[in-house]
Amino acid sequence: MADKLVYGFGGGRADGSAAMREVLGGKGANLAEMARIGMPVPPGFTVTTDVCTYFGESGGRYPAPLKAEVEQHIRQVEDLLGKQFGNADDPLLFSVRSGARASMPGMMDTVLNLGLNDETVEGLAKVSGSRRFAFDSYRRFLAMYGDVVLEVRARSKKEHDPFEVIMDRFKKERGVKLDTDLSAADLEGVVVAFKDLVRERSGDDFPQDPEVQLWGAIAAVFRSWDNPRAHEYRRMYRIPFEWGTAVNVQAMVFGNLGDDCATGVAFTRNPATGEKKLFGEYLINAQGEDVVAGTRTPQPISSSGEAGEDDEMPSLEALMPDLYAEFARLAETLESHYRDMQDLEFTIERGKLYMLQTRAGKRTGLAAIRIATDQVEEGLIDEKTAVARIEAESMEHLLAPIFSAEQLDEAKKAGRVLVRGLPAGPGAASGTVVFHADEAKALAHQGKKVVLVRVETSPEDVGGMEASQGILTARGGMTSHAALVARQRGKPCIVGCSDLVIDYEKAQMRVGDRVVREGDAISLDGTTGTVYLGLMSPAPSEVVEVLIERTKSLEQSPIAARYERILRWSDRFRRLGVRANADSPEHSNEAVALGAHGIGLCRTEHMFFGGRRITAVRKMILASDQEGRRAALDEILPMQREDFIGIFRAMNGHPVTIRTLDPPLHEFLPHGAKEVSSAAEEMGVGVAELEAKIDLLAETNPMLGHRGCRLGMAYPEITEMQARAILEAACAVAAEGVEVLPEIMIPLVGHRQELARQRRVVDEVAEKVFAEAGRRIDYLVGTMIELPRAALVADQIAKEADFFSFGTNDLTQTTFGISRDDAGHFLPLYLESGVFPVDPFQSLDIEGVGQLLRFGIERGRSVKEGLKVGICGEHGGDPSSIRFAHEIGLDYVSCSPRRVPVARVAAAQAALIEEANSQ
Amino acid sequence: MADKLVYGFGGGRADGSAAMREVLGGKGANLAEMARIGMPVPPGFTVTTDVCTYFGESGGRYPAPLKAEVEQHIRQVEDLLGKQFGNADDPLLFSVRSGARASMPGMMDTVLNLGLNDETVEGLAKVSGSRRFAFDSYRRFLAMYGDVVLEVRARSKKEHDPFEVIMDRFKKERGVKLDTDLSAADLEGVVVAFKDLVRERSGDDFPQDPEVQLWGAIAAVFRSWDNPRAHEYRRMYRIPFEWGTAVNVQAMVFGNLGDDCATGVAFTRNPATGEKKLFGEYLINAQGEDVVAGTRTPQPISSSGEAGEDDEMPSLEALMPDLYAEFARLAETLESHYRDMQDLEFTIERGKLYMLQTRAGKRTGLAAIRIATDQVEEGLIDEKTAVARIEAESMEHLLAPIFSAEQLDEAKKAGRVLVRGLPAGPGAASGTVVFHADEAKALAHQGKKVVLVRVETSPEDVGGMEASQGILTARGGMTSHAALVARQRGKPCIVGCSDLVIDYEKAQMRVGDRVVREGDAISLDGTTGTVYLGLMSPAPSEVVEVLIERTKSLEQSPIAARYERILRWSDRFRRLGVRANADSPEHSNEAVALGAHGIGLCRTEHMFFGGRRITAVRKMILASDQEGRRAALDEILPMQREDFIGIFRAMNGHPVTIRTLDPPLHEFLPHGAKEVSSAAEEMGVGVAELEAKIDLLAETNPMLGHRGCRLGMAYPEITEMQARAILEAACAVAAEGVEVLPEIMIPLVGHRQELARQRRVVDEVAEKVFAEAGRRIDYLVGTMIELPRAALVADQIAKEADFFSFGTNDLTQTTFGISRDDAGHFLPLYLESGVFPVDPFQSLDIEGVGQLLRFGIERGRSVKEGLKVGICGEHGGDPSSIRFAHEIGLDYVSCSPRRVPVARVAAAQAALIEEANSQ
Repeated sequence: MADKLVYGFGGGRADGSAAMREVLGGKGANLAEMARIGMPVPPGFTVTTDVCTYFGESGGRYPAPLKAEVEQHIRQVEDLLGKQFGNADDPLLFSVRSGARASMPGMMDTVLNLGLNDETVEGLAKVSGSRRFAFDSYRRFLAMYGDVVLEVRARSKKEHDPFEVIMDRFKKERGVKLDTDLSAADLEGVVVAFKDLVRERSGDDFPQDPEVQLWGAIAAVFRSWDNPRAHEYRRMYRIPFEWGTAVNVQAMVFGNLGDDCATGVAFTRNPATGEKKLFGEYLINAQGEDVVAGTRTPQPISSSGEAGEDDEMPSLEALMPDLYAEFARLAETLESHYRDMQDLEFTIERGKLYMLQTRAGKRTGLAAIRIATDQVEEGLIDEKTAVARIEAESMEHLLAPIFSAEQLDEAKKAGRVLVRGLPAGPGAASGTVVFHADEAKALAHQGKKVVLVRVETSPEDVGGMEASQGILTARGGMTSHAALVARQRGKPCIVGCSDLVIDYEKAQMRVGDRVVREGDAISLDGTTGTVYLGLMSPAPSEVVEVLIERTKSLEQSPIAARYERILRWSDRFRRLGVRANADSPEHSNEAVALGAHGIGLCRTEHMFFGGRRITAVRKMILASDQEGRRAALDEILPMQREDFIGIFRAMNGHPVTIRTLDPPLHEFLPHGAKEVSSAAEEMGVGVAELEAKIDLLAETNPMLGHRGCRLGMAYPEITEMQARAILEAACAVAAEGVEVLPEIMIPLVGHRQELARQRRVVDEVAEKVFAEAGRRIDYLVGTMIELPRAALVADQIAKEADFFSFGTNDLTQTTFGISRDDAGHFLPLYLESGVFPVDPFQSLDIEGVGQLLRFGIERGRSVKEGLKVGICGEHGGDPSSIRFAHEIGLDYVSCSPRRVPVARVAAAQAALIEEANSQ
Repeated sequence: MADKLVYGFGGGRADGSAAMREVLGGKGANLAEMARIGMPVPPGFTVTTDVCTYFGESGGRYPAPLKAEVEQHIRQVEDLLGKQFGNADDPLLFSVRSGARASMPGMMDTVLNLGLNDETVEGLAKVSGSRRFAFDSYRRFLAMYGDVVLEVRARSKKEHDPFEVIMDRFKKERGVKLDTDLSAADLEGVVVAFKDLVRERSGDDFPQDPEVQLWGAIAAVFRSWDNPRAHEYRRMYRIPFEWGTAVNVQAMVFGNLGDDCATGVAFTRNPATGEKKLFGEYLINAQGEDVVAGTRTPQPISSSGEAGEDDEMPSLEALMPDLYAEFARLAETLESHYRDMQDLEFTIERGKLYMLQTRAGKRTGLAAIRIATDQVEEGLIDEKTAVARIEAESMEHLLAPIFSAEQLDEAKKAGRVLVRGLPAGPGAASGTVVFHADEAKALAHQGKKVVLVRVETSPEDVGGMEASQGILTARGGMTSHAALVARQRGKPCIVGCSDLVIDYEKAQMRVGDRVVREGDAISLDGTTGTVYLGLMSPAPSEVVEVLIERTKSLEQSPIAARYERILRWSDRFRRLGVRANADSPEHSNEAVALGAHGIGLCRTEHMFFGGRRITAVRKMILASDQEGRRAALDEILPMQREDFIGIFRAMNGHPVTIRTLDPPLHEFLPHGAKEVSSAAEEMGVGVAELEAKIDLLAETNPMLGHRGCRLGMAYPEITEMQARAILEAACAVAAEGVEVLPEIMIPLVGHRQELARQRRVVDEVAEKVFAEAGRRIDYLVGTMIELPRAALVADQIAKEADFFSFGTNDLTQTTFGISRDDAGHFLPLYLESGVFPVDPFQSLDIEGVGQLLRFGIERGRSVKEGLKVGICGEHGGDPSSIRFAHEIGLDYVSCSPRRVPVARVAAAQAALIEEANSQ
């Protein structure tokens, strides 16, 4: 526990700074920094993340000196503002907000107007000159505090928020529609009703003592670090539980004291496109959460310059030009200061501008690439910083499909445009409508494509948003919860479709008289914000057209050119090689186009399916002896050879790692009576014979059964055939003058002898093939390290291996003793409740599986210096796993072709992190 | 490669000694030792095991200096005996035998009479004075050399040995029955026919050059180290392939030069009972292999003193009293010299006694215990040596069932005695008759109990013998192959039933006119050597009656008293604790009786089956919510509590480790339409509902699925119920004044958080139970380390654990990625071909899994000094695994109750080995 538990800021100075993120959280550190550089920040103080950790570990207690420190900082704020906390005449009010090290928008709870009670509300009425304002503030405070701190809230999904119910009752009684239509007297009644509600539900009177209120709010923030929403968010963004959150207590300023007040959020550049222009939204006479929650559709900050644009929804630029200019100046200062696009919150209280927050702005992949490359050109950042700033994941988002101009035209002509909204997340999505996040998850789990439609989204919906093709909301702006999450996850998203009327009860939505029911199909064009009726098949993105399909040139596409620039910079900085997992010439071509320097995993079993092949494979399985198997394998040989010829040609001199047959043989046999009888007929065997073989080969735990090299050990003729197909293909392609580098990989080796014997089979075939072909090819024989034992005895196995490749999928399954196929019964629970910090099948479990990788490398190289070692599980395309791969000295990662750009950027970032840490 | 490749012996001196086993093999080292201490050993020399290793690794080549060294030693033997190898007048002949470090009887190939050719046979005829003897020796040599070196042998199982076929043809032509009835001229004809056979089959003339013969035989011995029989033997006895075999080349002496010649084998004590009396068999006018192969039924060496015993089959003692006395003296000298019971081979050539071999004699478990305790009393060895000498495995053999006196009486009265033979392996066996080892294996694999019946057995039959309840042979003596193997494996065995006529073709056997067909049942009383018709159920052994059933006292049973003595000595020397795996009060009682100091694994799921319980369990599984599950669990609670009360009472103050529910829930659901519908009726639910649940819970890889602590994580109420049952039972038994030490073990933990949360559930229940009971119980909460990840992060997990217990079954499955249920398709192949040196499910894989055990201990104890760590997989009862457990500092092993004595002895031996190594 550090000495200092509370850090003050305000009045042009601060105890902390932007460098103290770990202790003050992101928000607190930036508030301190803004105060230091003279920004108009309402004064306040930050309770450190250390206190949160202490609170969690001690079961909800505080370090002894905290109370005195908090009180001292309250006095400092009081001195700065000349108001007292709890003073009945002119009360100082506070906002209390969470602020974790990593930004977690919307995930943590906030309480505003803290310090109000039956006495101070009268003082506030007096000094503000508005009784209505004072009681509106008080009822907001009661509702927020009641919900967040006292847990007075809807007790089931069917129940409405009880405070909202009271508000609705009052509005109904008064015959008005909007909250703002209620009078001061009405709101006084609301306040009484709210307090009654709290007493009834919590069994206690609402706390009138401001100090009690403050400590309650602080505790609630700390507790909220441990709530399920926060866990889900952290899991998704891989934020450690241990980090904790800070609490920011800041003097309130009011954007809702009248029409000379406003509140808003802004980005220093466009977060969707990256365009260099102040971009944001604001509301006159509102409190901050009104903008973010999307309950009112906000107005743009900047004018676009178009005629008439400001008539209905005047921009801040038009309405308050001086304040706009001041804000624009501050925004630019902050971007220059932080050398990054900033996401700002501000409030104007009676003509005075206050900055409430600044932070690095979240942006789409598209915007990230544009901003980074622009900033390099502007000289604001260097190329390393540009690469470091790209969220590696987003490199794949830019390869996501979009609708073609023709499709859109056609849909428009057919009158299928349903509605337009704000283009909050670019890209194309098409699927059936669902109205609840849980259903979205359930249907997606069944393999259905769905579009989640909500009035607005909240953190509870994040899982369902993730499971959907796209998200559509009726309310909210470009900075609403839906928009933020969608952009970050690369989901197409349209928000603020105010013409859309959603009826959850009837499970339908309506635009005018057009009704769309749950289960009907819609399509979202997130790039323009247009919603279409019916399914549409998205087409390749511009980057795909340029880089993979080559239907457009780099010059024609500024975004593809910038994308390539980021990748080329990345290649300059990275040490890790990047290969692709590809099983066909098409995939191989795509891999090369996206920058793969080889194939790290070519699965041969995919070539065993389909048409004549599967029949030959089944004949082999049914054969009663080696002779019969050889005859069937002879049929497969020329087909396999052709596969490899295509791949070697496509890879044109890049190494190709080919894995010998891996799945258990029963996977190739038919299932179900009908398929069995037709397969039997095709093969010319009796149904009973085929069924007997199916029974014989059935396994209790196929994952741990007769597969991998165990097949080649039992039936060396399979390995022989495959080695022959590979090496004959290699000789044939070499004869065309193309360089070929085949690497034959034996799967599921657990014991040195397995590799030794399979290697002998390959080497013997090789000699024969080379003699027949009259030429020799350099080839390697290596193994997958995908069993714990293989990693443990890697020094033994390395004696027989030319290379290693970690099969982290199976290695994770065996190390954890978890079958991915069966994990559905408990893994979601583990992730939701934080038992596992991340899904080990998505991101490598460094603590456990990572040790085995270290053993594999160290022990393998202890026997063969410089042994080539790669990774070819799905983790090969996961940025944090790539970082680990870099740290432990792997030679390359291999991932699906579309993730190659992700891997290139992540590999560069890993190198840059290392460089930064070594300085 | 050592400098010296060949070691000579003979003439009262030797280059080597008994201490050089590793280099000279067992046989070679003992020949050297005998020569050193002045025993009459025919001179010869030993080619070292290093040469075997070189031969194997170089693909069949020899180190350069070998040839010269061998020639030099041939000259030395020639000088000692005054004969020359290859001399046509008086040829020196050699035997060539294998000799591995560990004794491998019958597993390696032997060639006698080497040096004979068309010329030297004439010289032998002259000097021996017997043309018949010379050509008999030559034809034996041709057949042996032809088989072993030139591989002229039966080409299929149906074919007879081609040399035997020729012999049979000659005997038929001459109208005689025995080989010995053939004349010298007949045998000359046989020799010609044998040479023709060799030429025809091998394409070459039989090598006439003695030097060529010798090198051929040496190579054959080395090659035979790599044959499948040898692999099978080594696998069974866990002898490393790397050890290699030596080759012993020794001057021939002849037991078949006439009636003043003999050859025999003997034990210095009775190998079946341990009685202190020279025990053995011999044949007049025979070569050594005639005795061992059992082709003639040999005569006893010593007289029993019974009247008339020597009339038909005179003993050596009766026939050649002086030579017998000399032999008895040498035998005693050797036993004193080696301080252990010796297994001797000797030959008498024309009245002169030669010692051909001595080695520690194999003995039954019964004999081992008697000999060891006797030798301690005699002052020959100390108690540590006595314990070290016991084959730990044999402690379990002595618990094997026997037939009761009543059963035997009844069977006799019913006329069910089929035949009597030699009691070669004590114990009782009952099963259906099979005549082929392969069938024995196949039927045993299907769970059938079989008795293998053979004319005689050979090393090819070892697998089938292992699979059988007992072995019956028509020929052979107490030292025949069948007898040796059976004794070592603790199999009931009866040999030398000369009245038994076996007809493999008809698949039947006959005694007089009683015919027993394949598939008929017989029973063997290996203790008396009596064969009964029909099945009989064996009853408990004497040791079981005394120690477990207490139906006899220790004083009434000398063998049980000796057994106890060995165990008590073992307890003095061992450091490892020994616990038992027991799930019921009965098993617990048995475990305590056999010396278990606690229960290391009490599986609670076994208590979930049967009657009302399984219905309640199924109700729990079908419940749609926690409430429903709790209601069903409430039904189970009192039953589980009663189980634990019984166990705690039985264990009377010893610790009891209870594992919470482990198997996937679908294991408790019914299978098959009929069972499903009756279960549905019983539970009062629809068949469709039950089937839907069965489908929902089905898993692809149940071993890696929703089981272990993952159940308790998803349904904490199950853990709660079990914790409650355990702790309520503990309180109840403690109230009776009995000490209770419950240790609650959470299975399949892979992550610290799992244990932390399950532990919290247990601790909370404990507080409630203690409050209700008004008393506190000391209890522990720990975990099984049975996943690779758990071992790797044992330092994390240890923070939550009071103890660890290695679940080596699952740990082996996950570390190897092998499901035991599915390993049948490839594991036998791996073991037969030596890919795996031992079955990792039988004996812990020290190289791989062993590392994880080391990690688990080291890391666990790095966090909690002195953390109690045990092993509770099946390896807990395997001696070599126990030795490893001792080495790495485990606190205890836990095994099935009947293996507790094995573990106690093995644990003592581990400590003694450590003590010996540290000196």
